[in-house]
Amino acid sequence: MWKTRDDLADIEPRIAQLTAQMADMPEGVTLSDALHDVMRNVRDQAISSSEGGKRLRALLALDTFDTFDGNADVRNSMLDVACAIEVFQTAALVHDDIIDDSDLRRGKPSAHRALATAMHNTSIGNGLGLMLGDMLATASISIVANASRKLANANALVTTFLTMQREVEIGQVLDLGVETNELSNPQALAAASLDVFRWKTASYTTIAPLQLGMLAAGQNVEQAYAQALAIGKPLGLAFQLADDLLDVTGSSANTGKPIGGDIREGKRTVLLADALNTASEGERKELTDIFEAKSRTETQVKRTIELFESTGAIEQSQKRITALWKQAEQAIQALDASEECKKTLEEACARFIPENLR
Amino acid sequence: MWKTRDDLADIEPRIAQLTAQMADMPEGVTLSDALHDVMRNVRDQAISSSEGGKRLRALLALDTFDTFDGNADVRNSMLDVACAIEVFQTAALVHDDIIDDSDLRRGKPSAHRALATAMHNTSIGNGLGLMLGDMLATASISIVANASRKLANANALVTTFLTMQREVEIGQVLDLGVETNELSNPQALAAASLDVFRWKTASYTTIAPLQLGMLAAGQNVEQAYAQALAIGKPLGLAFQLADDLLDVTGSSANTGKPIGGDIREGKRTVLLADALNTASEGERKELTDIFEAKSRTETQVKRTIELFESTGAIEQSQKRITALWKQAEQAIQALDASEECKKTLEEACARFIPENLR
Repeated sequence: MWKTRDDLADIEPRIAQLTAQMADMPEGVTLSDALHDVMRNVRDQAISSSEGGKRLRALLALDTFDTFDGNADVRNSMLDVACAIEVFQTAALVHDDIIDDSDLRRGKPSAHRALATAMHNTSIGNGLGLMLGDMLATASISIVANASRKLANANALVTTFLTMQREVEIGQVLDLGVETNELSNPQALAAASLDVFRWKTASYTTIAPLQLGMLAAGQNVEQAYAQALAIGKPLGLAFQLADDLLDVTGSSANTGKPIGGDIREGKRTVLLADALNTASEGERKELTDIFEAKSRTETQVKRTIELFESTGAIEQSQKRITALWKQAEQAIQALDASEECKKTLEEACARFIPENLR
Repeated sequence: MWKTRDDLADIEPRIAQLTAQMADMPEGVTLSDALHDVMRNVRDQAISSSEGGKRLRALLALDTFDTFDGNADVRNSMLDVACAIEVFQTAALVHDDIIDDSDLRRGKPSAHRALATAMHNTSIGNGLGLMLGDMLATASISIVANASRKLANANALVTTFLTMQREVEIGQVLDLGVETNELSNPQALAAASLDVFRWKTASYTTIAPLQLGMLAAGQNVEQAYAQALAIGKPLGLAFQLADDLLDVTGSSANTGKPIGGDIREGKRTVLLADALNTASEGERKELTDIFEAKSRTETQVKRTIELFESTGAIEQSQKRITALWKQAEQAIQALDASEECKKTLEEACARFIPENLR
C-alpha cells in the first residue's frame, strides 16, 4: 500500500511537468503577444485537463513493472511510460467531450468549453479543443519514444503504445456505430456493446498498462502480449461495466458527471440491453420510446433507472462484473511467477473493481 | 524527371495500401454486422480522403534521400516514411475541415460531411470524422516507427516525425489565434501570419521532408536539422504565400476549393495585412468592415480581390515569394555536396513554387 501512495506522489507532478513542456512552444521560441496568448490558454488548459484522474492505469503499469522485476535503475523511465498512458487518456477524453458535446469533465468545464470561454468565441474554442487533443496524443507518444530508449524491449514498447492508441480509436468508432443500433434486438446490442469495451476501454485501461510493464521489465514480447490480454481483457470489460453501473447508481461527486448521464444522452449500454431483454412487453415499449426520442426528461431518466433495477439489469451487470473479475484472477494465478508477485499484481488489478463486486 | 514520375507511381498505391490496413480492424478480428458497417465506412473514407494529393512532400523526402546517397537497398523503407508524411497531412486536413466546418476538400465532400451522409446522422458523422483524423495521425507514426528500423538514424527519424506533428499542431493553434487579431495593426498581422506559416506549413511541407530524407541517408543529426531548416523554412513560407495567392487568383479546378474561399471565411492572411497596410483610409475602412462582419457576400469577395490587386498586395506577395525562394536557393548552394546533387535538390524544391515567381 505504501508504494501506491508513493507512486501517486511521483505520477501527479510528472504528468503536469511533461504536459506543460509538450503543450507549449519549443524552448527559446518567442512569439508576438497575440499569438502568445492563445498558446498560454492552450497550455494552461492542457495542465488543467490533465488534473484529477485516479491514475489507475499508471499505477497498474508501475506495479506490473515491479512484479516482473523491472530494473530499479530505470524505474524513472517506466514512470514516464506510465504517465504517457494518462496523458493519452486525457487526449482521448478531450476529443470524446467534443464528440459528445459534453459540458463537464472531472467536475470542471470540458476542455473545448473552457477554451471557448477563455477565447470569447465558441468555434475557436472548439477548434482549440480539437487541437489540444491532438497535441496531447502526439505528446504521449513522444514521451514513450524518449523513455523507452532506456528500457528493455524499446521497439516493442513504442509499437505496443501505438497499437493501444489505434485500438482506442477503433473503439471510439465502434462506440459511435453502436449508437445507430436498433433496440429491437437487445441480445445483439449487449454483444456489440461488450465487443466495443475491449477496444474502447480494456485496450488502454488494463491490457496496455500490463503489457508495457511486462515489456519494460524484459518479458518476452509474445508472452507479454498473451498474458496482458488474458488478464487485461476481462478486467477491462469488468471495469467498464462497473463504470456504466456507477452512472446510474453513483453520484456526481464520484464521477464529476451528473447521475444518469448516459441515459440522458440516450446511450446504448449493456444495462439498457439487459433491461430490454427481460422487460415485459409494456416496459420494453416504454424503454424503446424513451431511448428513441430526441431527448429525455428528468422524470424519464428516473423511470429508466427504476426499470434498470426492477428488470434485474443492474443485478445482471453486477453478476457479469464478478464473473469477469474471476476470469482475470484465474489468468493472474496461471502466471509463471512467485505467489508473492501474483498477490501484488492481483491487488493492483483489484483497484479497477468495486470491492463488493469482486 | 523520369524518376519523379516513377516515384509517383509507387507512392499512390502504397498510401492506399497503408491507409486501408491502418484504418480497419486488426487482421483476424470479426465484428457483428452493425459494427462492421461503421468500420467499413470509416476505412472507405480514409482511402477516399487520402486520394488526390500532389505528393510534393513525399517526392521531396525521396529526392532528398537520393541526393544524399541513401542506401538503395532500403529505399522501400524510405518510401514508407515519405508516404507517412502524406498520411499525416490527410489526418491534419480532416481535422482542419472540422475546425473550419468546410464542405469540400480536393473537390470532394470533406471527410466529416461524407461520413455524416454515409451514416445518415450529422453528429455521428462529425464524431467519426474526428476519430478518422486521430486514426490517420496514429497510423502515420506507426508507419515511420516500423520503416525507420531499417534506415539510418532510426531513433532520430521517429523523433523528427513526432516533432513535425507537434509543430503542425502548434501551427494550427496559432492559426486560430491569428483569427482573434485586430485589423488595426496590419504590420503586426503580417508578422504574426508569417510566424504561423513556419509552424503550420513549413514544418511538414518542406523542413521535415528534407530532414527525414537526410537522416535516413545517414547524415549527421544536428547537421540534417540545420540544413533542413535553412532550406525548408523560406521554401515553406514561400509555398504557403503562393497557396494563399492561388486562393484569390486560381480556380476551383486547381485547388478543389472555390476561388476566394479564404476571403469568404474572413481569414486573416498576409494578403489582407499587406492590403490594409497600403490602402487609402477609405479602402482600409471598407476592408475592415468586410472582414469584421459575420459573413461576406459574393460582391464583397469580388471587391476584396479587386482591392488586393489595386493596393499592390498581390504584387507584394509575389515579391515576398521570389525573395524567399532566393533564400532557399542560397541555402541549397551552401550545402557541402556535389554540383549535381545541388541541382537535383533545387529541382525538387522548385516544385513548391510557381515557375513565374522563382
